[in-house]
Amino acid sequence: MNGALTVVGLGPGGPHWLTPEAATILHGADALYGYGPYLDRVPVRAGQSRHVSDNREEGARAAAALRHAATGANVALVSGGDPGVFAMAAAACEQIERGEAQFKQLEFAVVPGITAMLAVAARVGAPLGHDFCAISLSDNLKPWELVERRLDAAAGAGFVIALYNPISRARPWQLGKAFERLRRHLPAATPVVFGRAVGRADETVAVAALERADPSQADMATLIIVGSPATRVIERPGRAPLVYTPRSADGAGA
Amino acid sequence: MNGALTVVGLGPGGPHWLTPEAATILHGADALYGYGPYLDRVPVRAGQSRHVSDNREEGARAAAALRHAATGANVALVSGGDPGVFAMAAAACEQIERGEAQFKQLEFAVVPGITAMLAVAARVGAPLGHDFCAISLSDNLKPWELVERRLDAAAGAGFVIALYNPISRARPWQLGKAFERLRRHLPAATPVVFGRAVGRADETVAVAALERADPSQADMATLIIVGSPATRVIERPGRAPLVYTPRSADGAGA
Repeated sequence: MNGALTVVGLGPGGPHWLTPEAATILHGADALYGYGPYLDRVPVRAGQSRHVSDNREEGARAAAALRHAATGANVALVSGGDPGVFAMAAAACEQIERGEAQFKQLEFAVVPGITAMLAVAARVGAPLGHDFCAISLSDNLKPWELVERRLDAAAGAGFVIALYNPISRARPWQLGKAFERLRRHLPAATPVVFGRAVGRADETVAVAALERADPSQADMATLIIVGSPATRVIERPGRAPLVYTPRSADGAGA
Repeated sequence: MNGALTVVGLGPGGPHWLTPEAATILHGADALYGYGPYLDRVPVRAGQSRHVSDNREEGARAAAALRHAATGANVALVSGGDPGVFAMAAAACEQIERGEAQFKQLEFAVVPGITAMLAVAARVGAPLGHDFCAISLSDNLKPWELVERRLDAAAGAGFVIALYNPISRARPWQLGKAFERLRRHLPAATPVVFGRAVGRADETVAVAALERADPSQADMATLIIVGSPATRVIERPGRAPLVYTPRSADGAGA
């Protein structure tokens, strides 16, 4: 079977973060599949078909892309950020494992991209400079108790924490609960970074102390980074403060 | 003061993972600072100075780049992977906080890149498809007991674990100890991915069960991903197996 599916990461923002590899694969594909706003970021090429789907239909979208590839086509499934981080690569693997038997015979590849936490971190300094974790607050995919257990474990062990999918119409209270939970473990002054639409024209970045971090500042396009007790804020005259986590656990540098 | 320092991520491998933003900044800089093998990946441009340093001198390298920027120059400090993940962005922030007072007046920016765990994950499927963490095994920057506490916390709470800086001449036993520690928490069959020099001509990727994971397979260029109990291996006829972690905690998909 000659068909191929490639899951392609666009990065979090504009074309300045799209890798040459991703651009080449997107240009060469016979067909593109993806959520509308992501497909809108890919230049139109004559002779290439486009298949737009809703954001909630990840499994169905991956299956449709695999079925198309099984006809012998070279299909690209686009993903925001990095496809491997709370995105389309796992959805495609789920379909390869459990879907039609022919899906296992297809060529399958993933093209990495810059994931949102790296872009947000870059905007403020280096908050992910020491051990860190990434947690999705989307509790339609796991029980809320498990989210809390992971927040406890991560904060208790000194990880910086990146929160993906912090809030949505279907998930209005989770971020507030997460902040409450983290306040049990972390100092009141722990820096919290809100990075919204980073890399896009409407980008906003804000830093707040955990005790005053306001969940209503976040929306679906926001990625949040909660510091560890080691995370520091550098005030600078006439410039925005920097947020970073020293490489050394005792903050002594090297 | 007009000087500027930009810390630029090259991504983990060849030019296909260098973002357009990084390429633009590197081309426009008056001076480049960095570890030799990273600088070797940046095309030479006439009129641009190059300042090579040893890999162990991160603090001194960052300070030298900042002092150069303070003369009014536009300086780029190159970093492998993403500068914010166990790399040069935190080293630069440390110098801005504690070094010469003038460093706080400089323009400072970070250009994100693809970090090694994303590239390694892409090669095998989607092992980082659910909650995950990144831990550096470099214990010259933290006590080994803290590394073990974080391994315990992460494995116990079901995070997939990416291990950076797994081994070196100065750090020969840490990876073996880490595997031993993780075997206390995780099933014997848990997939472990060894990704070496991913994106380069000498790339190798291997997958082993945790019970048989051999630390001697890793070197300084290796990034390791240890699955969670939910991580799965998909066998495919005539193709390399895929490794992925389902998006849903119960593995049911969505």
